[in-house]
Amino acid sequence: MLFKETIVALATPSGAGAVAIIRLSGENALSIASKVFKSVSNKDLSKQKTHTIHLGYIEENGKTYDQVLASIFRNPHSYTGEDVVELSCHGSVFIQQQIIQLLLRNGAKMAQPGEFTLRAFLNGKLDLSQAEAVADLIASDNEASHQIAMQQMRGGFSNEIAKLREELLNFASLIELELDFAEEDVEFADRTQFKQLLERIEFVLKRLIDSFAVGNVIKNGIPVAIVGEPNVGKSTLLNALLNEERAIVSDIAGTTRDTIEDELVIDGVGFRFIDTAGIRETNDHVESIGIQKTFEKIEQAQVVLYLFESLKFQVSGSEYIVEIEKVKNKYPLKPIIIVVNKVDLISVEEQLSLVQQLETLNLKQILLSAKQRTGIDELKNQLLSFVNTGALRNNETIVTNTRHYDSLLKALEEIQKVRFGLDSGLSSDLMAIDIKQALYYFGEITGEVTNDELLGNIFANFCIGK
Amino acid sequence: MLFKETIVALATPSGAGAVAIIRLSGENALSIASKVFKSVSNKDLSKQKTHTIHLGYIEENGKTYDQVLASIFRNPHSYTGEDVVELSCHGSVFIQQQIIQLLLRNGAKMAQPGEFTLRAFLNGKLDLSQAEAVADLIASDNEASHQIAMQQMRGGFSNEIAKLREELLNFASLIELELDFAEEDVEFADRTQFKQLLERIEFVLKRLIDSFAVGNVIKNGIPVAIVGEPNVGKSTLLNALLNEERAIVSDIAGTTRDTIEDELVIDGVGFRFIDTAGIRETNDHVESIGIQKTFEKIEQAQVVLYLFESLKFQVSGSEYIVEIEKVKNKYPLKPIIIVVNKVDLISVEEQLSLVQQLETLNLKQILLSAKQRTGIDELKNQLLSFVNTGALRNNETIVTNTRHYDSLLKALEEIQKVRFGLDSGLSSDLMAIDIKQALYYFGEITGEVTNDELLGNIFANFCIGK
Repeated sequence: MLFKETIVALATPSGAGAVAIIRLSGENALSIASKVFKSVSNKDLSKQKTHTIHLGYIEENGKTYDQVLASIFRNPHSYTGEDVVELSCHGSVFIQQQIIQLLLRNGAKMAQPGEFTLRAFLNGKLDLSQAEAVADLIASDNEASHQIAMQQMRGGFSNEIAKLREELLNFASLIELELDFAEEDVEFADRTQFKQLLERIEFVLKRLIDSFAVGNVIKNGIPVAIVGEPNVGKSTLLNALLNEERAIVSDIAGTTRDTIEDELVIDGVGFRFIDTAGIRETNDHVESIGIQKTFEKIEQAQVVLYLFESLKFQVSGSEYIVEIEKVKNKYPLKPIIIVVNKVDLISVEEQLSLVQQLETLNLKQILLSAKQRTGIDELKNQLLSFVNTGALRNNETIVTNTRHYDSLLKALEEIQKVRFGLDSGLSSDLMAIDIKQALYYFGEITGEVTNDELLGNIFANFCIGK
Repeated sequence: MLFKETIVALATPSGAGAVAIIRLSGENALSIASKVFKSVSNKDLSKQKTHTIHLGYIEENGKTYDQVLASIFRNPHSYTGEDVVELSCHGSVFIQQQIIQLLLRNGAKMAQPGEFTLRAFLNGKLDLSQAEAVADLIASDNEASHQIAMQQMRGGFSNEIAKLREELLNFASLIELELDFAEEDVEFADRTQFKQLLERIEFVLKRLIDSFAVGNVIKNGIPVAIVGEPNVGKSTLLNALLNEERAIVSDIAGTTRDTIEDELVIDGVGFRFIDTAGIRETNDHVESIGIQKTFEKIEQAQVVLYLFESLKFQVSGSEYIVEIEKVKNKYPLKPIIIVVNKVDLISVEEQLSLVQQLETLNLKQILLSAKQRTGIDELKNQLLSFVNTGALRNNETIVTNTRHYDSLLKALEEIQKVRFGLDSGLSSDLMAIDIKQALYYFGEITGEVTNDELLGNIFANFCIGK
């Protein structure tokens, strides 16, 4: 047990609800809870078994605060590895505050953000990458990010790193041994095997590092700039893309739908749609500010959706094409999809001529009707083609955390140094230094190597109560 | 067991947090939970004892949704009186939705608002007035409303009603008996004792009915109109009144403070401050709309705080006094408190002359400095003087619910009819009808007498998950 103090915090979302949970953890969790909890059957809470639930009242000086359920988790069989008591009370904000204040008066202290998980880590219940996955899991808002966080929390990533680390450690100790017998010039570590190991480690590290491109996109969503004039059908298109998901969401009360129009999940991958006004030439000062902003947003985006209305394109098609050429020349590497909406309003012949006109641009083009829901699947597939979800489907480890990515890059650099040293016949003592450094970076990921500042940075981003 | 279907809902507040609770209740709660819950120690969830907690994963078709704790409550030892399973999962909105959908796919149905508590009532775990207190408890945002709801939920009010009802029922059955022996003209029910009982019931009913004036104010807060020009120091004054409370609130993260400036709790009683602009004569059309609004707000308020600045009063005092006279004449019964702010800016002599000027109004007046926190306690006491908190301190039953109030009024009317009938020698059969009617209204409060429409109205106001 590393901590003297018993901490308390609200574990459930803030606000009013049917039920709220107040969590106590630390060596005095049971004794503090017992001071204010009066069981309906007169049981002494502090004498009860782990993983049991007890009905009672929260009382102090004859005043009753609430009827609650107290759940007991005894050290080490708890989330933090310490004694934990969870009080499930009525979910009024007033009651939550009153009970927390009561527990503070009785010797608990307010938990810092992430302090429960920090204690879990320091008590060996989770490694550091698993602890980070807990925060990712809570923040996950789509299938893909949820799945990756879940895999990481269950130790998938840690196991992969731990395995590499162990093998490397094995060789490192043999090399260290050689140093002890330096004058005899022996080789305990088989150089051929060692080279093979380094190659394997390099291969795995490169795969993990490459996965960050996908992982980062999945974690943060793919930014898509929609360029299009007002009334071209942007929100109808977003609604059509959202179709099934929205129906599901509205089934469950309490879901906020305020921002849903800007963030869509397609096949489990998040897309963030950024609305822009278009970039037609103008002398108007206000409008030219608008054009500047459109360019900024295109720059931030990973994909550009150029949205037109079929009838309007028939009138001003050539102007639009000049406009798109401009964007294309400015951002030659940015994928652009031309979407012509409301195709149901023009004839098949007109559609054909429109397609021919657009072909000069040599860009991906999709004709659709957002209202009638035609062409929507094609657009979905186009958007998804920018994400390599193969790794996701194959259940491979995907790195989503910038900190892990940095450590992996540094570890790779050290491994490459070691391999270069091996190839060029570097002496064991110098090689040992590089190996140690690689081991250090592996350890950074899972938390074998750590320091207060690093932990501070990681857990400061957690919510209080986790 | 009255319900075939097993219901599910989120029990914790909506939004993201460390932990969320999903609650299942019904005869299939355990079997549905067992289908998707895989214990880490391979235990069969449906075979576990009541009031125990189990760690495991939510899984379906090889896909893991989350690591959760499952708490088991076996019929009748649960909130609803049915089998209940509570799944404590990671608090991401996405995970909450996924697990609820999974349970719906496995045979649960979405709970209606208040359906858990409705089942608790229909299964005899709570009477109707206690069930209503659950909603009040969750909505309570200050000491007084919390205390009343708590007392009501613990059955204080129900016991009082039940006792009266039982005594009345006793007499009613004796009177019914007399009807069976009508031809023999016997009196089983002692008329003197009966009269005493009726008087006692009338006394208690009147006390409960009177308590509604306090109860209603405590439940909804006392509306106070602050009349005052801009920059007269309204928010400084509210802050000064709030002083300690705010300091406590800010200690606990997650508390919304957006509306706190308009709602203050003083000594456990809620006050709602309604900001108004003042009512000086004007020819301006827009301003006269403002004056109209000020009058409307004064009308809604129970107390009017007239706020002035000392220096400005020295200049325009007589105008202000004309203005206040106007309000006073328009609302002769409305309590008005004159508050002169920033008294630290004028000399003691000037203060005295100001007081003398105001005395002509014959209203309560307070000189204070919101900034320097002088006179604040006097204002607090003045505001509190409008609430009879005696009943609250003496732990008497206070009626807060309009439905209860209506039933009590009707019961009183019937009791008075019975007493009148008794005095005027009404025949037993006619008296029996009035007694039955009184019993009916008592029963409405606690739910012995009920119907679907009444229950529908009551529970529709609950949140889902309660």
